Amino acid sequence: MICTVDATHDPNLRSWVESANQAGSDFPIQNLPFGVFRRQHQVDPPRIGVAIGDQILDLAACSQLGLLQELPDSVQMACTASNLNPLMALGRMASSALRHHLSQFLSAAQPPPATDDILVPMTMAELLLPATIGDYTDFYASIFHATNVGKLFRPDQPLLPNYKYVPIAYHGRASSIVSSGTPIHRPIGQRKAPNETVPTLAPCQMLDYELEVGCFVGKGNTLGEAISIEQAEEHVFGLCLVNDWSARDIQAWEYQPLGPFLAKSFATSISPWIITLEALAPFRGQAFSRSADDPQPLPYLNSATNQQQGGINLRLEVWLTSAQMRQQNLPPVRLSSSSFQQMYWTVAQMLTHHTSNGCNLRPGDLIASGTVSGELAGTEGCLLESTQRGSKPLTLPTGETRAFLLAGDEVTLRGYCEQAEYTRIGLGECRGIVS
Amino acid sequence: MICTVDATHDPNLRSWVESANQAGSDFPIQNLPFGVFRRQHQVDPPRIGVAIGDQILDLAACSQLGLLQELPDSVQMACTASNLNPLMALGRMASSALRHHLSQFLSAAQPPPATDDILVPMTMAELLLPATIGDYTDFYASIFHATNVGKLFRPDQPLLPNYKYVPIAYHGRASSIVSSGTPIHRPIGQRKAPNETVPTLAPCQMLDYELEVGCFVGKGNTLGEAISIEQAEEHVFGLCLVNDWSARDIQAWEYQPLGPFLAKSFATSISPWIITLEALAPFRGQAFSRSADDPQPLPYLNSATNQQQGGINLRLEVWLTSAQMRQQNLPPVRLSSSSFQQMYWTVAQMLTHHTSNGCNLRPGDLIASGTVSGELAGTEGCLLESTQRGSKPLTLPTGETRAFLLAGDEVTLRGYCEQAEYTRIGLGECRGIVS
Repeated sequence: MICTVDATHDPNLRSWVESANQAGSDFPIQNLPFGVFRRQHQVDPPRIGVAIGDQILDLAACSQLGLLQELPDSVQMACTASNLNPLMALGRMASSALRHHLSQFLSAAQPPPATDDILVPMTMAELLLPATIGDYTDFYASIFHATNVGKLFRPDQPLLPNYKYVPIAYHGRASSIVSSGTPIHRPIGQRKAPNETVPTLAPCQMLDYELEVGCFVGKGNTLGEAISIEQAEEHVFGLCLVNDWSARDIQAWEYQPLGPFLAKSFATSISPWIITLEALAPFRGQAFSRSADDPQPLPYLNSATNQQQGGINLRLEVWLTSAQMRQQNLPPVRLSSSSFQQMYWTVAQMLTHHTSNGCNLRPGDLIASGTVSGELAGTEGCLLESTQRGSKPLTLPTGETRAFLLAGDEVTLRGYCEQAEYTRIGLGECRGIVS
Repeated sequence: MICTVDATHDPNLRSWVESANQAGSDFPIQNLPFGVFRRQHQVDPPRIGVAIGDQILDLAACSQLGLLQELPDSVQMACTASNLNPLMALGRMASSALRHHLSQFLSAAQPPPATDDILVPMTMAELLLPATIGDYTDFYASIFHATNVGKLFRPDQPLLPNYKYVPIAYHGRASSIVSSGTPIHRPIGQRKAPNETVPTLAPCQMLDYELEVGCFVGKGNTLGEAISIEQAEEHVFGLCLVNDWSARDIQAWEYQPLGPFLAKSFATSISPWIITLEALAPFRGQAFSRSADDPQPLPYLNSATNQQQGGINLRLEVWLTSAQMRQQNLPPVRLSSSSFQQMYWTVAQMLTHHTSNGCNLRPGDLIASGTVSGELAGTEGCLLESTQRGSKPLTLPTGETRAFLLAGDEVTLRGYCEQAEYTRIGLGECRGIVS
């Protein structure tokens, strides 16, 4: 079930796309993530592509030129679609075969003739949502995030009794998921401060980001049929970055008793490139180390393979640039750096729990991890935690302070895997400027 | 904004489809709800139809035969689609024009030649989901339901402080929405009784129905642009019945702090016919009468028109047949009868609140009301309320008792509008047998 390291991960592999060979590129030939794009200012229908260095390999063009003929017809056909859903539906075998083929093609001794027909500079393209997202689910899988947030609201019982048994999640809003770079409007909503007797409708004053990892579902399951922990990763197409923008004042007033609603549904940004589990194979490792006091996961969420290889050594970062910083040409400032391996529940556990009641996942569904926070200062995945609900504002290089996001603030999420003997791969970035 | 009563509601109007003229039919010519069907046992693509008596008028066939030529091309085109989303996207003007045209066509003095080409007996057809549902939202708009449920969990404070200000809702799961008649599998899930120290994974023991009304969104709105209370009904295509099946034991253990998740996502049934706001025009009336102590809705949720005409005088019923009752040929027993006019929030208020943060609705989105319960015994919309969490089981005509649903129980929801001078119209039924 867990992908193995193979020739596609060979650190000596080089591409004839020269930019892919530069140290520090998010998209070396060892990565090959999938996305959807169109040439900027064109009304072309969206096309599937693969990121390679600073270029996009146009898979529809490759298919039309007969460069994918060795692959099954179904895969060739899926490469000409306007989104990744058909490729996702084919399952891991298909996307894995395609990635292997592209790895060989892009590392051939000589480039093919007329590379202009199949390569598009990334700076020239408009990167779109990679899939039609049927349903969006948001988990709460970081025990440090849950504890930090819990402390703010229930100092005597930060973690609720179900947390160590149930991978907690809620249904999110699919319609308001936007591609990286889409401006984020500040929502209006009802809020009521503790000292106010009645709520008012006003622009959100506690606008926050949430650093999360998203998992795109590949092959779906039939309604009524659960997916076992052993089979879970067969249903994962790949990962991306998710910024689950949150209106904390709206959330505080609305969320009882049915959970967050309008505090979330005004916008969720995702990064354009989906990093496949195949590409992540060298960076797999231990799941979260539970302490001796912690209960073991219930049997349906417990497997030796998941415990040993269910984690992903993925570093995640949040960067901020204020309008004033941009005016002064100051670089972004890093607000957080954490590891996805510190999540209490693995991707496989989330997916298995999600379907344990028979709920059907469909190709292109998005399952987000919830805010990724670590244990130490500087690892908090949102301002609610790092500023302790605004009570301890951050100071920016300009001297400005931030309790929550202000107009013109740009938030950029980054993610990458880096490990001694392997080539570093990146998730790219997920950006948004708030109004 | 509110539809007016016109010639299509004339109680003297009769159709050449004789079954539509029978007293008590859910689908007289004054109704004309839209749905999607295919002939049973056929692999035909789904088609759009209109219910008339015990027949379905096949709109694709009508379009092909040139019977809709008086209508705009966009409407004719939408009638040949495989779901209602294109027609919904055209907005109320379009669906209203189509309904007017069909009213005249179906009440002509003589039937057209070859009615066999355009009429399909409903018993011969497979009724499908009427639309591709992008997002499903579930409200909590009955103050009686919220109070009854609150009493079980917080006897000292049944209603939370936000209830009378915020139309509470949560995001639901779209993938597991099924058409009426689909068998409902009993979900498995984590549950923990108060006297147990650790949870176990087991089949749900507290399976419940929830009687709700669903609202299908017609014309959508752009992300970032709220819909005013005055404009809200322009974005409503029509109503149906919703059974939001609920696993109460799973819900009790999982729902803190982010709301219901797997307790709901195993199945949600909806009735096949969407009753347009045009058809409901004669049955509009006062919104909920707030007491002198209750706060007025905040200005964005308040309008004189909505207050006077935002309510819908729609009667709703729940019927149960157990396996034993079926064996003994006993008729279904009615478990509940309530009025949709008793909801604390109107459809317009729900829709306006939903978009107040800029959240975009798309044609075909489903917005459910939450469980419809009244104030008195016999009006409870779920077993959690009527059996007080199972502590006061119901007795069926066979002598069997029910705390929650058992294998073989069939739940049927019904809805209809009946008012002195107008022809009764029905919403049809929403059925499901649980395993």
